Amino acid sequence: MSCWYNDKAVEDDIAVSTRIRLARNIAGVPFPSRMTDEQKTAVNEQVKKAIIESNTPYAKSLKFLLMKDIPENERYSMIERHIISPEFVKKSENGAIILSDDESISIMIGEEDHIRIQVILAGLQLEKAYDMAENLDTLICDSLNIAFDSQLGFLTECPTNLGTGLRASVMLHLPITERAGEMSGLAESVNKIGFVFRGMYGEGSKAVASLYQLSNQITLGISEKNAIDNLKIITMQLTQKERKLRESINKLKVQDMCMRAVGTLKYARIISSEEMMKLLSEVKLGMALGVLDTDINPIKLLIEGQPYMLMRQFGIMSPDERDIYRANLVRNSFS
Amino acid sequence: MSCWYNDKAVEDDIAVSTRIRLARNIAGVPFPSRMTDEQKTAVNEQVKKAIIESNTPYAKSLKFLLMKDIPENERYSMIERHIISPEFVKKSENGAIILSDDESISIMIGEEDHIRIQVILAGLQLEKAYDMAENLDTLICDSLNIAFDSQLGFLTECPTNLGTGLRASVMLHLPITERAGEMSGLAESVNKIGFVFRGMYGEGSKAVASLYQLSNQITLGISEKNAIDNLKIITMQLTQKERKLRESINKLKVQDMCMRAVGTLKYARIISSEEMMKLLSEVKLGMALGVLDTDINPIKLLIEGQPYMLMRQFGIMSPDERDIYRANLVRNSFS
Repeated sequence: MSCWYNDKAVEDDIAVSTRIRLARNIAGVPFPSRMTDEQKTAVNEQVKKAIIESNTPYAKSLKFLLMKDIPENERYSMIERHIISPEFVKKSENGAIILSDDESISIMIGEEDHIRIQVILAGLQLEKAYDMAENLDTLICDSLNIAFDSQLGFLTECPTNLGTGLRASVMLHLPITERAGEMSGLAESVNKIGFVFRGMYGEGSKAVASLYQLSNQITLGISEKNAIDNLKIITMQLTQKERKLRESINKLKVQDMCMRAVGTLKYARIISSEEMMKLLSEVKLGMALGVLDTDINPIKLLIEGQPYMLMRQFGIMSPDERDIYRANLVRNSFS
Repeated sequence: MSCWYNDKAVEDDIAVSTRIRLARNIAGVPFPSRMTDEQKTAVNEQVKKAIIESNTPYAKSLKFLLMKDIPENERYSMIERHIISPEFVKKSENGAIILSDDESISIMIGEEDHIRIQVILAGLQLEKAYDMAENLDTLICDSLNIAFDSQLGFLTECPTNLGTGLRASVMLHLPITERAGEMSGLAESVNKIGFVFRGMYGEGSKAVASLYQLSNQITLGISEKNAIDNLKIITMQLTQKERKLRESINKLKVQDMCMRAVGTLKYARIISSEEMMKLLSEVKLGMALGVLDTDINPIKLLIEGQPYMLMRQFGIMSPDERDIYRANLVRNSFS
């Protein structure tokens, strides 16, 4: 199974991935937090029918899964692959998910809203990701009575999603901007124009591996196209800033740092998730700068080295054992 | 030219090297600190004659060098190879040295005493080193009128050398004893019985790379044989203690540490002398524990990576340039 992080894409030296999320709810049915089990089951079925049983090309690559049929560890590994939200794992007993083979499409049913359409692609592909999400949205809107107000737009459980229900985000690798101490200043600046930086795993997660998820906050009074265009403009500005800063750094010093990261990744016998992410971030930088020649995919390895992703591949184990298996995985990837 | 640190020897997993030094002075001539230039030249010639012009097997492998004919950087590199003392470089303008091809024998003429015979060998070879030093001493005593008092023994400039004029020392690699926090306690214990720990470069140098030079302090009222036997007993105790501690450590954790050291040494592009020594100390430990298989000679590399040794090989350069050349040297040694 090929995942988004296996793909090469434009701007992916800095813009690692693009994500589009649309929040939708069925009119006349309470929001998931107040739904009965029967209502949840009914919504699952309605969405399944609208998507899977539509006679569209999309339907063929999509599968419907009840969350309760997915083992708990697999669910956590789905968070690590950015397919579902951490919240969804906690309260998804009666939820369901529609997933494409390559996992670029995932539709959570019964998260905060009835329907959360998500498309995630490698690199900077906002338009393509939005088109894919919109196609799915059309399928849903065509066959279900989606809650929509002519003044407010799409109705959502949380007022911050009201309007377009759109969250567009780009994961940016900004090691040199970060090192220059400019992240907090930039965070303030983007906040002022309705955007926000988050960590790799969204709201509440801290930035690791110099990966910052930049997303829109405003969903009301702005069109989807404008929101996406604005995000793209800011992304390009941040990308150019990072590239400019990269030009001014001492090549040898940064090569030393990147090569040391390779040395540690290739030789360590025990490695924590945090250290692996930090080192792979340095490897990614070295590759982007051309000071390091390797066919490693650092983002792929970063995700595959996460705790539940490791256990998915090698079986249940303790954190200490994971640190050993992680070191093996990383070492084997490099050799 | 093969040096002592190229040799394999008994106990050299922990006892890196053995050094014997004998201090001698010519009767009726002031100590070097109060000698005239003419007297210095005369002493140089007398010692040269006694050793080089003796018709003994030793003489063939020995060469006589005036310190003023040795370039300054080469002199400093001789300190790094443990051939001469730092003090001798500072005030050796009229001094001379007699050196064997393999540099295991060096006789400083005009250091603190007129004659300082030194023998340095790999591993724990106290008797052999002493025998070699004694043979040279016999040559000197046979042809020169050496200052000797029937009550005090050999007369020396500094009273701490009076008697045998013998300093015997063993360089010990004690990483796990050090990590266990036992070095200061051990230092107190050995002091009580007339021994002392010093750093790798003798008096006043701090311990780096977990290398500790253990030597006798008492030269008066004790025979050479007793001094050496006692040093050997303490060395064996410390060696056994280190070995015992090594048995109790977590093999995987120590392997992780040693392999990371290899990774950094093989990949770094810039490396300081201090870091190189620390990492090579870890490599040496890994080799001794059998968790790391390499044909590197960490002690050889540790010496060859010293500042003046580097400049001896690659030419004069700044400290920053040395860090780059050191990284290259280390990297090439491993590949």
